[in-house]
Amino acid sequence: MDEFALIQTLFQPLQEIGSEENASTGHGFLKKIGDDAAVWKGQGNLAFSIDTLVEGVHFTSDIPPYDLGYRCLAVNLSDLAAMSATPLFYTLAITLPEIHEPWLRAFVDGMRVLAERFHIPLVGGDTTKGPLTITIQAHGLCPHPVYRDGAQVGDDVYVSGSLGDAAAGLHLWLDRDSRSAASTHAHSKDEDFLIQRFHKPTPRIVLGQALSGIASAMLDVSDGLLADLRHIAEASGVSVVVDAQSLPISDALSRCFEMPQANEWALTGGDDYELAFTAPPDMEQKLQAVAKQSGIAITKIGRIETVNDTQKVSVENANVDLTRLGYNHFS
Amino acid sequence: MDEFALIQTLFQPLQEIGSEENASTGHGFLKKIGDDAAVWKGQGNLAFSIDTLVEGVHFTSDIPPYDLGYRCLAVNLSDLAAMSATPLFYTLAITLPEIHEPWLRAFVDGMRVLAERFHIPLVGGDTTKGPLTITIQAHGLCPHPVYRDGAQVGDDVYVSGSLGDAAAGLHLWLDRDSRSAASTHAHSKDEDFLIQRFHKPTPRIVLGQALSGIASAMLDVSDGLLADLRHIAEASGVSVVVDAQSLPISDALSRCFEMPQANEWALTGGDDYELAFTAPPDMEQKLQAVAKQSGIAITKIGRIETVNDTQKVSVENANVDLTRLGYNHFS
Repeated sequence: MDEFALIQTLFQPLQEIGSEENASTGHGFLKKIGDDAAVWKGQGNLAFSIDTLVEGVHFTSDIPPYDLGYRCLAVNLSDLAAMSATPLFYTLAITLPEIHEPWLRAFVDGMRVLAERFHIPLVGGDTTKGPLTITIQAHGLCPHPVYRDGAQVGDDVYVSGSLGDAAAGLHLWLDRDSRSAASTHAHSKDEDFLIQRFHKPTPRIVLGQALSGIASAMLDVSDGLLADLRHIAEASGVSVVVDAQSLPISDALSRCFEMPQANEWALTGGDDYELAFTAPPDMEQKLQAVAKQSGIAITKIGRIETVNDTQKVSVENANVDLTRLGYNHFS
Repeated sequence: MDEFALIQTLFQPLQEIGSEENASTGHGFLKKIGDDAAVWKGQGNLAFSIDTLVEGVHFTSDIPPYDLGYRCLAVNLSDLAAMSATPLFYTLAITLPEIHEPWLRAFVDGMRVLAERFHIPLVGGDTTKGPLTITIQAHGLCPHPVYRDGAQVGDDVYVSGSLGDAAAGLHLWLDRDSRSAASTHAHSKDEDFLIQRFHKPTPRIVLGQALSGIASAMLDVSDGLLADLRHIAEASGVSVVVDAQSLPISDALSRCFEMPQANEWALTGGDDYELAFTAPPDMEQKLQAVAKQSGIAITKIGRIETVNDTQKVSVENANVDLTRLGYNHFS
């Protein structure tokens, strides 16, 4: 199957997703796939984020293609969630070592399930030959964006869902051969949950939208909580103090791993794609209502203090080695 | 140097380019680099195109980094030119095997010269580790886009500039070791011109804009003239007849290579990034004026006929082997 036939049969149907929903918002496409460029006719605050996932760096070569397709779109939508945006559409540039149709069908299926959930069409792309690399640019409307630079001294720090699951899931996934050889499977359901948290993160779109007007600063937890909070500290010119004992740890994670390890992953492990944000103390009641309505836990994990040049992010009640504090990476 | 310092020192200055010009158009950025997403506030027809260049597929590992930076942005802007769009901004996702600062500085310099020419800021991106791969999404406004599907029976077919130079340049570049070992350098200036045509194509932005309202269908010549004209034929439901004797061949190309070879490259070689378009016969005078004003040659190379299912693109007066007709590729 050549490039054009491939695009026709596999990618073209993705451009029909959500068309009607978009029309009803007054925004629409004059052109999607199939010309030199897509043409979007609209107005407002258009947020967009581009992210690349590289085989061997961001995922292992044996990730199920369905999960990979899901994950590539999920991590991009997570960036939109962190802006408090409503997803509108996305583009896909995929570099493949070869065209293996069953693999590609499963990859497309994984993207489709998420695209259908958020009613977003694929509107353009590029297919190239080379080492497996996937770049997606996701676009959304955000009438009232929430940035990283709005944290104020006295604000509380919150995080959605639970932390550390994805790092535990990655550990389990990489270690699965030795586990399957072992005789005990007492935790197999919990382990599957953790692996899914790594492979198929949930972009917190609805929560992100609900936090507009409440959160003073926001981002998604992709590099690891401490590394990500550092961005808020630097952009806002404040310091962040995290209470290590308050971090939300899932039941699955606490059943599968001892506390110091779970807490370390919660502090420094990445890939959870939860929202971390700050809000003034008087927003606490509103936040409880948002948590109740969305069904997603919101946990207070720290506070914003005046800027402290030597330690932009510090941790209280830590029971783990924190030499990794301030960790950042080239990946 | 870590990822964040790298972005700070090298990529951040690119986001300042063209800021004032964009403000004067009533469009502007609430956020560029440095948050979860960029936020553009504007309205109108936003055209955008995403393209990936992979080392070993779209460029050789020894391409000068300055040329590579230039080329990556140029091929994306060429897609906007083919829509008759005015470039506004771009995003960059770059995957690097390592951070080699001098290389990266030269790469950024190459992007900058083109970004400054068209007054477009870099507004977002992603830096990842892996095999050298560069993905750019370029965005522009096009009040009156020109698509591929507007060609009418009776229209003439035109192309800008000259064809085949880039294919010749690639040939010369790959063969340069054996050439430099030879004693004769009679054509060295011509050869440099051809290599530059491959490494540093000129996006025909101003010409593309001038052709709005004149051209009935348009695209840029990236895969090779015959392969690209096939897209117009298929999208418009017509046939294209090309007169092989009318193809514009540059003086440099005709001095360096014999006619059959030059003509073959003009027909099937890609990477020239000239504009190929159709227009009704009564537009000929307007086209002469556009050519005069832009200083870019516009050559009539064929005509549009009723649809011919067996041969969507056919060639008259061919003096080369045309078994490659209908050629398409996965790259």
